[in-house]
Amino acid sequence: MSRRKLINDEPCPVARSVDVVGDRWSLLIVRDAFDGMRRFSDFQRSLGMARNILSDRLRKLVEAGILETKPASDGTAYQEYVLTPQGESLFPVVVALRQWGEQHLFNPGERHSVLINKRTGKAVPPLVLHDSDGTTLQPDMTEVRKLISGST
Amino acid sequence: MSRRKLINDEPCPVARSVDVVGDRWSLLIVRDAFDGMRRFSDFQRSLGMARNILSDRLRKLVEAGILETKPASDGTAYQEYVLTPQGESLFPVVVALRQWGEQHLFNPGERHSVLINKRTGKAVPPLVLHDSDGTTLQPDMTEVRKLISGST
Repeated sequence: MSRRKLINDEPCPVARSVDVVGDRWSLLIVRDAFDGMRRFSDFQRSLGMARNILSDRLRKLVEAGILETKPASDGTAYQEYVLTPQGESLFPVVVALRQWGEQHLFNPGERHSVLINKRTGKAVPPLVLHDSDGTTLQPDMTEVRKLISGST
Repeated sequence: MSRRKLINDEPCPVARSVDVVGDRWSLLIVRDAFDGMRRFSDFQRSLGMARNILSDRLRKLVEAGILETKPASDGTAYQEYVLTPQGESLFPVVVALRQWGEQHLFNPGERHSVLINKRTGKAVPPLVLHDSDGTTLQPDMTEVRKLISGST
């Protein structure tokens, strides 16, 4: 619904994504939403951010079609913020950020949260880019081809 | 090498990653570095950012161990900025941002750049989180377990 509003002149999809979610607060709000957080006061407590900045970021995420507002699930007058399908499809972005942090930003033995498969209780393996034949694609095996029709 | 400097009190790897790369300019510099860009003047031309901000971001990316400086490959006096192995491991982050943008931020038929497998010339498939048995993991099949030892 907000697709047209987000369009700018950048033919690079990375640049457009970064314009929408490439800031610290938006990424952390999306992270919390994946963890099941829904209420303004919970986001505020989790992130320790100023109310006006939180309001602004939530509004922008709603405008961008990443979150949508819903009446509170418990029948109270609160409004809740829930990931849309477009927001849910940010899952690989959040997982990739998590796994990079786990790999590089903790000392050995230092405690950190872990993303687990609920069914098995085990940590999920690293996100890997595979080609359609199953080959693992390293960065140097790929390149960006500029300005191809959007229908490809 | 810079591991200790980056440590803060956040037990969440997403938060630590976002502290290091969660801003528009850093993500776009890393994107350009994956595209083979190495020189200050090339980054500046590509990103159209102020020289002082570019200097600051490059310095922070070097301090964070994501880029390293090297003498120019052509023997001139220029300094070049190259991804370290730690920087290269941001590949899934950049690919995930790209694919989310391709999926949601372009109108049908609108032109955008495409990440291809150099060998086949074909666009790479979407990044998917698989469990070790090959199951595709959707967000609701996972959860974050807080504060596990960093050695897991």
